[in-house]
Amino acid sequence: MPKKINVTVWNEEDENPKHQPAYPEGIHNAIAAFLKNDEQIGTLRTATQSQPEHGLTQEVLNDTDVLLWWGHVFHGMVSDEVVERVKQRVLNGMGLLVLHSAHASKIFSSLLGTNTHNLRWRENSERERVWVLEHNHPITAGIGEYIEIPESETYGEHFDIPTPDELIFVSWYSGGDIFRSGCTFKRGLGKIFFFSPGHESFRIYDMPQIQQVIKNAIGWAAPVAYPTLLTQHQKVSPEELYKKANVLE
Amino acid sequence: MPKKINVTVWNEEDENPKHQPAYPEGIHNAIAAFLKNDEQIGTLRTATQSQPEHGLTQEVLNDTDVLLWWGHVFHGMVSDEVVERVKQRVLNGMGLLVLHSAHASKIFSSLLGTNTHNLRWRENSERERVWVLEHNHPITAGIGEYIEIPESETYGEHFDIPTPDELIFVSWYSGGDIFRSGCTFKRGLGKIFFFSPGHESFRIYDMPQIQQVIKNAIGWAAPVAYPTLLTQHQKVSPEELYKKANVLE
Amino acid sequence: MPKKINVTVWNEEDENPKHQPAYPEGIHNAIAAFLKNDEQIGTLRTATQSQPEHGLTQEVLNDTDVLLWWGHVFHGMVSDEVVERVKQRVLNGMGLLVLHSAHASKIFSSLLGTNTHNLRWRENSERERVWVLEHNHPITAGIGEYIEIPESETYGEHFDIPTPDELIFVSWYSGGDIFRSGCTFKRGLGKIFFFSPGHESFRIYDMPQIQQVIKNAIGWAAPVAYPTLLTQHQKVSPEELYKKANVLE
Amino acid sequence: MPKKINVTVWNEEDENPKHQPAYPEGIHNAIAAFLKNDEQIGTLRTATQSQPEHGLTQEVLNDTDVLLWWGHVFHGMVSDEVVERVKQRVLNGMGLLVLHSAHASKIFSSLLGTNTHNLRWRENSERERVWVLEHNHPITAGIGEYIEIPESETYGEHFDIPTPDELIFVSWYSGGDIFRSGCTFKRGLGKIFFFSPGHESFRIYDMPQIQQVIKNAIGWAAPVAYPTLLTQHQKVSPEELYKKANVLE
Repeated sequence: MPKKINVTVWNEEDENPKHQPAYPEGIHNAIAAFLKNDEQIGTLRTATQSQPEHGLTQEVLNDTDVLLWWGHVFHGMVSDEVVERVKQRVLNGMGLLVLHSAHASKIFSSLLGTNTHNLRWRENSERERVWVLEHNHPITAGIGEYIEIPESETYGEHFDIPTPDELIFVSWYSGGDIFRSGCTFKRGLGKIFFFSPGHESFRIYDMPQIQQVIKNAIGWAAPVAYPTLLTQHQKVSPEELYKKANVLE
Repeated sequence: MPKKINVTVWNEEDENPKHQPAYPEGIHNAIAAFLKNDEQIGTLRTATQSQPEHGLTQEVLNDTDVLLWWGHVFHGMVSDEVVERVKQRVLNGMGLLVLHSAHASKIFSSLLGTNTHNLRWRENSERERVWVLEHNHPITAGIGEYIEIPESETYGEHFDIPTPDELIFVSWYSGGDIFRSGCTFKRGLGKIFFFSPGHESFRIYDMPQIQQVIKNAIGWAAPVAYPTLLTQHQKVSPEELYKKANVLE
Repeated sequence: MPKKINVTVWNEEDENPKHQPAYPEGIHNAIAAFLKNDEQIGTLRTATQSQPEHGLTQEVLNDTDVLLWWGHVFHGMVSDEVVERVKQRVLNGMGLLVLHSAHASKIFSSLLGTNTHNLRWRENSERERVWVLEHNHPITAGIGEYIEIPESETYGEHFDIPTPDELIFVSWYSGGDIFRSGCTFKRGLGKIFFFSPGHESFRIYDMPQIQQVIKNAIGWAAPVAYPTLLTQHQKVSPEELYKKANVLE
Repeated sequence: MPKKINVTVWNEEDENPKHQPAYPEGIHNAIAAFLKNDEQIGTLRTATQSQPEHGLTQEVLNDTDVLLWWGHVFHGMVSDEVVERVKQRVLNGMGLLVLHSAHASKIFSSLLGTNTHNLRWRENSERERVWVLEHNHPITAGIGEYIEIPESETYGEHFDIPTPDELIFVSWYSGGDIFRSGCTFKRGLGKIFFFSPGHESFRIYDMPQIQQVIKNAIGWAAPVAYPTLLTQHQKVSPEELYKKANVLE
């Protein structure tokens, strides 16, 4: 039986009707609610910026296999120390799901190296169709050919990201835009999935297909293992490496 | 519990001490032997060229989730009709493991579109080190930083393949060559893994690490699902598509 | 001064008002017309299916640096021998531009290995916006952020191609589809660019931006050199290779 | 006639016989010496850490099309402000060549997002063979199948970088290692080339093939254009965008 996945859902805020009008209970709690009965998940936590160390102590991170990150207007208030801690944990193997406006978060731009806040956007309640480009992929299992979102916030290219390792979804908007709305990136030992659907004004996280994508992505992003590489900027010959390595034979 | 994976191991020959001197039982049987107790596997078959339709009837293929292909000197004797049948099954989602000298097989070059027989080689009993480039990947789980093969056939660049979707292994040879020895490719809905270690004169398939890579790759290549896309060169609007699609809601 | 590029424009037909209603002069002639004054081009030829060997003799191919391919309804009538000859020339370094409905051509599917005829389509005179994903790329120089095509044929996903080496353009259609409309692939030594805009019923090839993309792509696809690799499936040690190679020192 | 390329060669030190024993004139000066007569180059500058703002003022960067970066033991002494300035210039289109031990520089890790100082190394005067994986590529024009370096510093995997956009070179070392020694990355509008050959104790930069790779890479990394994208995190409809854009028609 595969090991259970420990998941932490992070939000820049607690409940705040002004910034999360569609989610009076807080977006982190809305996401945690549909993950609660997911059998692949072990410990399920939420954490928010208002907590000490934003709720992301080294202990919490060490016990987290996949971290979900939601942020919108307070990216600048996240401490650089916590961002660096999360980053090193991702490079050591923890999975990271970057949701919607978290494209502009410090942790995402720090891992990708580009100005990820740069994209085009408007709030116009347009229709969004999230087309699947990668079929037979763990993240799109059970989704069909596209997801229809009746009303959404529009994101448009050019989105300043490196070429994704895999381009999973591309969205169509009725106003004339397309957007790379689902992208995977591997950085260090960690797997990252960016998924744009999920505005604070529409209850998109209630859609079964959106929930399925997030559950699928948690399974995909969970580390196969946390290998301890011996090649940490040190002098070591292949022979020593071979002797030390925890290999099969 | 995940569905069991049906596996078929194909060889261009039956037992043949001349062409498979290290494997008097036949390479397909040697591979099947170490897969026999793999719990992820359901039906385990072997098939060879001497059988009617090379043992790869439509019925067998339809019941195969991952096909392992070993060939060396008789690539030209494989019927084009069977190659096309295997190809279409891969494009529909079946996984394919291309082993060692099968780099020159019709099925591999047909799926990749290049002259995959082009590489440099010599039989000089050199040492091979198979370095892992992708850690935290299902195919390399449990392998450590490299696999040491005391005596191997040497393959060298330039190897005429398209840029792999993922470069999993690169081999070092004591004679001065490097080689992209483990590569993944996605074609249609199917996942393909090329893995070069495994000569007919050295019992490399007895090495536990090599066996682990093959087992890992079977798990990786097994289809998540066999989706029936509606977009088979037909006129259909997104609305019709949406109605017909077997989606979640 | 860089070497001039020899270009051949191929069409499955000569003039045919039934199949190319918007181009009474033949699409190959319409394309050749706007290439005529391109200073980067040396010899400019056209060739059609009705000619002996479809106009693509070994001599013509050997003197062609970039081949443009337009086909629509007569893909099946192209001889396999000519397709194989073109394919080998691409693998040896010739550039190839695959235009519009040539996605279903034998040469394209043979080089990519997938069922490239599979996509969704309709003729509905919809608006198409061809969004640029790769800025600062030779193919998109001078194009701006997108190309607006007032009336177009609609192509939609899922398009059965391997993951492109570079995804240059993604099109938006007013009817609800997106499509990977500009893709690069490297196969062997040759560079391939697929570009979907260019229907037989709309004079899209008259648009200055579309002409610019094609000119840019010719410059991009032209081979840097036609290296003669020594690694053509032969036994050769690195030392021999080094002695024989035409290297700088 | 193409625009000349303005090049700046940066070094963490001036002349320093202790840290650059093989280059009493300073590595930046050794590199500038062989670039001096390169006809593609316009203004050729050097800059070092000891200069005000490390010689990389906004004015210098604005007049630089391709920056070469060499550093070894003083990465930590480079000011974060200058790093950020260089980074933004790269994201706006300037090319960047990262040479040898600059893999551990702040600018490289900041653009890639990973712990790029992590690799394995030893100084053992081993033989290095730099194998070409991408033929018919601007960076490898005229190089042949590999570059032989009689004595080199050994770098080994695992090297903590994201999957390169293109893997141009892989090195073989007589001691048993392989290393991804030539990699391209695109970040924002800028092109980055990492090239590992070039130790401070061996005059590898005197080798004609190494000089050719660097010249080739300068041509490759030079921006096609510095487009001003309108999509800088602002609200703008495609229609406005189209009107404002400096497009062809």
